[in-house]
Amino acid sequence: ARSINLAVIPGDGIGREVVSQGLKVLSAVLPQDVKLETREYDLGAQRWHRTGETLPEAELESLKGHDAILLGAIGDPSVPAGVLERGLLLKLRFAFDHYVNLRPSKLFPHTATPLAGSPEIDFVVVREGTEGPYTGNGGSLRTGTPAEVATEVSVNTAYGVERVVRDAYERAKARPRRKLTLVHKNNVLVHAGHLWKNTFDRVGEEYPEVTTDYLHVDAATIFFVTQPERFDVIVTDNLFGDILTDLAAAVTGGIGLAASGNVNPTGAFPSMFEPVHGSAPDIAGQGKADPTATVLSVALLLRHLGYETEADRVEEAVAADLTERAGAAARTTDEIGDALAVRVAN
Amino acid sequence: ARSINLAVIPGDGIGREVVSQGLKVLSAVLPQDVKLETREYDLGAQRWHRTGETLPEAELESLKGHDAILLGAIGDPSVPAGVLERGLLLKLRFAFDHYVNLRPSKLFPHTATPLAGSPEIDFVVVREGTEGPYTGNGGSLRTGTPAEVATEVSVNTAYGVERVVRDAYERAKARPRRKLTLVHKNNVLVHAGHLWKNTFDRVGEEYPEVTTDYLHVDAATIFFVTQPERFDVIVTDNLFGDILTDLAAAVTGGIGLAASGNVNPTGAFPSMFEPVHGSAPDIAGQGKADPTATVLSVALLLRHLGYETEADRVEEAVAADLTERAGAAARTTDEIGDALAVRVAN
Ligand SMILES: CC(C)[C@H](C(=O)O)[C@@H](O)C(=O)O
Ligand SMILES: CC(C)[C@H](C(=O)O)[C@@H](O)C(=O)O
Repeated sequence: ARSINLAVIPGDGIGREVVSQGLKVLSAVLPQDVKLETREYDLGAQRWHRTGETLPEAELESLKGHDAILLGAIGDPSVPAGVLERGLLLKLRFAFDHYVNLRPSKLFPHTATPLAGSPEIDFVVVREGTEGPYTGNGGSLRTGTPAEVATEVSVNTAYGVERVVRDAYERAKARPRRKLTLVHKNNVLVHAGHLWKNTFDRVGEEYPEVTTDYLHVDAATIFFVTQPERFDVIVTDNLFGDILTDLAAAVTGGIGLAASGNVNPTGAFPSMFEPVHGSAPDIAGQGKADPTATVLSVALLLRHLGYETEADRVEEAVAADLTERAGAAARTTDEIGDALAVRVAN
Repeated sequence: ARSINLAVIPGDGIGREVVSQGLKVLSAVLPQDVKLETREYDLGAQRWHRTGETLPEAELESLKGHDAILLGAIGDPSVPAGVLERGLLLKLRFAFDHYVNLRPSKLFPHTATPLAGSPEIDFVVVREGTEGPYTGNGGSLRTGTPAEVATEVSVNTAYGVERVVRDAYERAKARPRRKLTLVHKNNVLVHAGHLWKNTFDRVGEEYPEVTTDYLHVDAATIFFVTQPERFDVIVTDNLFGDILTDLAAAVTGGIGLAASGNVNPTGAFPSMFEPVHGSAPDIAGQGKADPTATVLSVALLLRHLGYETEADRVEEAVAADLTERAGAAARTTDEIGDALAVRVAN
């Protein structure tokens, strides 16, 4: 008998609400013979307030034993900026070597976009997840004085860049348009930019069927709003990927629909799936959060674990649900989850 | 008699075309009694190919003697990425301590925007210009080998952050809405983020009349396309400012309209005015470039030198010209320059 041993981290704010809808849809879509086991981990703001812990070693060890992780959202205004992000969310991404941060951006039919003329948008961002300005290198000297110097060090290795670039070429090769765009800022960040661009060009020689393109990150934001149809697969650094994928979410119907996977393609560690949005404390507990981003993250999780048919069913259910939404009354978090669960079960 | 002693750096690609329109409008708008002297500096790709020089010491010295600098665009695909940007453009910004990179974003009436519903957009980005990831700190170890490590260091000082934050508060205070938004990423870049946020909060105590707000850079890109009307003045780091102002240009009619000033508010060094766009080698020499961004940069230059009425006239001429453009046949670079020169002369 098949089984999925899933770790669940609801986290903060709307995290719990959206995660329970994700689980509802996951249970509904899985074939009868697949045993779904879940274990919830109490991590996030409340835990930190109670115990001062963000991600204790024992829990990190225990998380390793799961097939995958479903995460809601991390972060709360009652906790100093960075404590939970660095101590929990990024710690997981780094500890489990999630070097591929996969963020598909698709404008579903009948979905509202802030862009005039509803262009065709269907690309995926392969964001590096374990290097760049996210490493936590840097520090502060004479903190709080008029002589303070604060640094942030972006660390980029040939090892780290090549593996994510290679992953992106593979994904581009498997898509009909076979186009890969590198986004960086190699006219200013010349050291990191040189490493990225050289690696991109060198690995590209092994993929003659993939068309390539390079854009500076500033120019890329322009094309996101003026010509989003030009993108197929984008590979980029950790920080640029963070910025670009929020913008991509905005133009494809909003952050309520944007899914992501923090993937370790080698399988050495469990991959982690989470909506791109944050904990949105302003609307937490009110049933207003859209669980669709989490449900689409469940689709990525299913695909990662080899349940292709089920992943397709979830994505089709979302597309159908979005079509019905146009002009209809707003529904609660729970109602959207129920509707999606019914659809995937059919 | 009054006079303006202007340095002109046409630079690369469309730089020369747009700069000559800027000068045309500048001459037309200045009162008879103001003597305009210009000196052109041959800097950019051609000079580099010819002599290997980007910005020789003698020319840097000579540039110091001018009241202001008008720059077209720097960068060419025939030159390795970064050589001209770091060796000329950024060298000028750093040498002349242009710590305020001023980038107004206004959606003029009747101007096409990729956003549905043409929202009200009228904000200004105060981008830090002499620190952050632009300092050129960092390097590469074992370059070109599978063991390469490349770093980029973002350097932030209390001195540098406070002066630009203070400038931004002053600008916010002088505007009707009196709102200032800090954009950073203090949940990940905790050291630099802490310095920025603390400085922002502390200096803010001196400006009780200014409403403040904080956004992570990723979230800010969302609001740029969904609620751009929420912004009045934005203060941000060098790299975030680079990215955000290209996006801002895109939503306010495109990079052909976006002006900027690299300002040293103390007057110790000449300030430098340039369109936000690049050298656009693909359309250079074809009369296709829109000189409006350069003309609006001339307005910023005029305002900086105290010619307020003349600056207003240039901006009004652009607004009127943009209104006429809607639905009209495309004009050449020269034709747009002529039309604007005629308008400001009236
Ligand atoms: C919460 C934050 C640390 C995180 C990031 O910057 O990666 C988020 O913005 C994201 O995109 O997943
Ligand atoms: C050309 C480049 C170095 C420059 C920058 O990154 O500042 C440009 O993008 C700009 O915004 O003025």
